[in-house]
Amino acid sequence: MKPILAALSLAALVPCLVAGAAAVRADAGRGRAAPVYGVELPEGYRQWPLVAPAQEAAPLDELRVVLGNPVALRAYGDGTRPFPDGTVLVKLAWTHVPSPDFEPASVPGAATTVQVMVKDSRRYGDTGGWGYGRFVAGRPVDEAQHRTCHACHAARVADRDYVFTRLAP
Amino acid sequence: MKPILAALSLAALVPCLVAGAAAVRADAGRGRAAPVYGVELPEGYRQWPLVAPAQEAAPLDELRVVLGNPVALRAYGDGTRPFPDGTVLVKLAWTHVPSPDFEPASVPGAATTVQVMVKDSRRYGDTGGWGYGRFVAGRPVDEAQHRTCHACHAARVADRDYVFTRLAP
Repeated sequence: MKPILAALSLAALVPCLVAGAAAVRADAGRGRAAPVYGVELPEGYRQWPLVAPAQEAAPLDELRVVLGNPVALRAYGDGTRPFPDGTVLVKLAWTHVPSPDFEPASVPGAATTVQVMVKDSRRYGDTGGWGYGRFVAGRPVDEAQHRTCHACHAARVADRDYVFTRLAP
Repeated sequence: MKPILAALSLAALVPCLVAGAAAVRADAGRGRAAPVYGVELPEGYRQWPLVAPAQEAAPLDELRVVLGNPVALRAYGDGTRPFPDGTVLVKLAWTHVPSPDFEPASVPGAATTVQVMVKDSRRYGDTGGWGYGRFVAGRPVDEAQHRTCHACHAARVADRDYVFTRLAP
């Protein structure tokens, strides 16, 4: 694993262990604004449509799903880039555990993080138009972690308007 | 193109050539009723809320997501069991491929199957109230496959109204 990824993964893991988030619903702390960007967990995001699932290898070993609001799904559907202002993407993540009912399957365990991207080209002009929020057990993580978000997106997917996740076919 | 990307593109292409399915959206064949149960791909299911993701080990090696209609999500949310008539669950499945942008992640490749469960306690009284549909590239699979659906659900999750998937936290 490249050092930057190891550092990112470790940074992502530590707050989960420290916060003891496992039994708390992922959106338990709605209404708390993340540092740097002021992004909050959006109301009703759990009812938003699917963009795509993903799985993440060790050490995080997570199942993940990205959901998007209607603005996001329209832009994904018709290929509009950059994503228009008002786009909101939410990535939910869980540990995974073996299904007790069907051996080959792994299913969500505890919720770990919820991560939010909000497009507002004026408010977030210094970071490609995107504001970022990272939440553990519904509480935003600290400023230092939020300062790392855009650099990683900019280094890897600047040519896709800083968005990793493609719409699943 | 980087070698790894070229390899991925080739890997993505092969199933297209073999099955003629990979480039077809999973819901391309809407309106065709599955044998035995007469279940169709429901209109608009791709906009339905998330129930849970899963990953499936080899040989299928798939990423999966279950979505539910509003009746299903209400029942999941308030614990109503058996699920009421009108409940519809849709499981989408994809191969998975390494993310070209973030090494630890695997993301959806080609869509493989879409599987549907419809609750109608009168119409499907002989199978616990559930009708089943299994679709590949939008087309229902054959009668023999549909004859296997309920037996597996009945053998493993009869005590949860024949539904494998739990609501992700």
